[in-house]
Amino acid sequence: MAERYEIRFSGAGGQGLITAGIILAEAASIIEGRHAVQSQSYGPEARGGASKSEVIIGEDPIDYPKATIVDACLAMTQEAADKYAVGIKPGGLLLVDTDFVKNPPKGDYTIYDIPIMRTAKLEVGREIVANVIALGAMIALTDVVKRESGLQAVLAKVPEAFIELNKKAYNLGFEKVKELMAG
Amino acid sequence: MAERYEIRFSGAGGQGLITAGIILAEAASIIEGRHAVQSQSYGPEARGGASKSEVIIGEDPIDYPKATIVDACLAMTQEAADKYAVGIKPGGLLLVDTDFVKNPPKGDYTIYDIPIMRTAKLEVGREIVANVIALGAMIALTDVVKRESGLQAVLAKVPEAFIELNKKAYNLGFEKVKELMAG
Repeated sequence: MAERYEIRFSGAGGQGLITAGIILAEAASIIEGRHAVQSQSYGPEARGGASKSEVIIGEDPIDYPKATIVDACLAMTQEAADKYAVGIKPGGLLLVDTDFVKNPPKGDYTIYDIPIMRTAKLEVGREIVANVIALGAMIALTDVVKRESGLQAVLAKVPEAFIELNKKAYNLGFEKVKELMAG
Repeated sequence: MAERYEIRFSGAGGQGLITAGIILAEAASIIEGRHAVQSQSYGPEARGGASKSEVIIGEDPIDYPKATIVDACLAMTQEAADKYAVGIKPGGLLLVDTDFVKNPPKGDYTIYDIPIMRTAKLEVGREIVANVIALGAMIALTDVVKRESGLQAVLAKVPEAFIELNKKAYNLGFEKVKELMAG
């Protein structure tokens, strides 16, 4: 893994993308003892739909006064993809929701698509866990933290009653990536 | 108000300081149409107790590749105060919890103390809203967003059933500052 790895989660407001970013940062730092910075910047356009959150993970303290170079980007909506895929580094990756991003912007990166919202709705029964499915898929694709660390960080964030639901969602993220790679 | 204003919320993990930061950033951006960046950096020390979150608010896009200069810092615990008051700019302010920060670190800034946790426990009946009391007090002290914007942003984040509780907590933050100033 590179010395510094940056992941961007983008989509619509209310989709839990800040939470996904915080969980990933905590997996890297609190659980794996590495360094992480998690951030979101808001402009007046935050009033509209697109929203993003970013995580930088490194072995050393992150000197985040630095230009952003996105290794991997999630886009849950077409608007977010159009707006935030820009900035993915050559050789990076873009993960999109199959149903909501019909025209993923092309670039010098690999595009993966998973029906994230549909999986949340049909296989978990709760759209609210789409962010955890996406997080699982992102970790499966990037290996930026260990699978187990991500799961621990997810479970540390959710109330007792939602443990099983979130575990299922996280694992589905991994399964969908496996299917994608097999297909 | 300065062109760029930075607030740091620090305390122990689980005290809702990230949420306080996000709410403030949303008040400035989504509600007031300004720019904001909200971030947290985690090192391996995140495994221990102290935790912080930061918000930068400005009229223009925030070029946050820049050194941090903290205008105002909240510290809910002694450990957080010792660790994070460093960096408050000359003439800035440090707000501490009266009961948990017995020795606020001295510096070229004004120190205010409010019994934040005690107020949450005794006047609201829920320690969980301490972060919202602290947010109210911070906005009262700094005027970085309008009182009404902060309230709107708080209420946008909480489930229906907790609206009254959070409104009360937010308003208590303002009242405690008023008492402090009168005293």
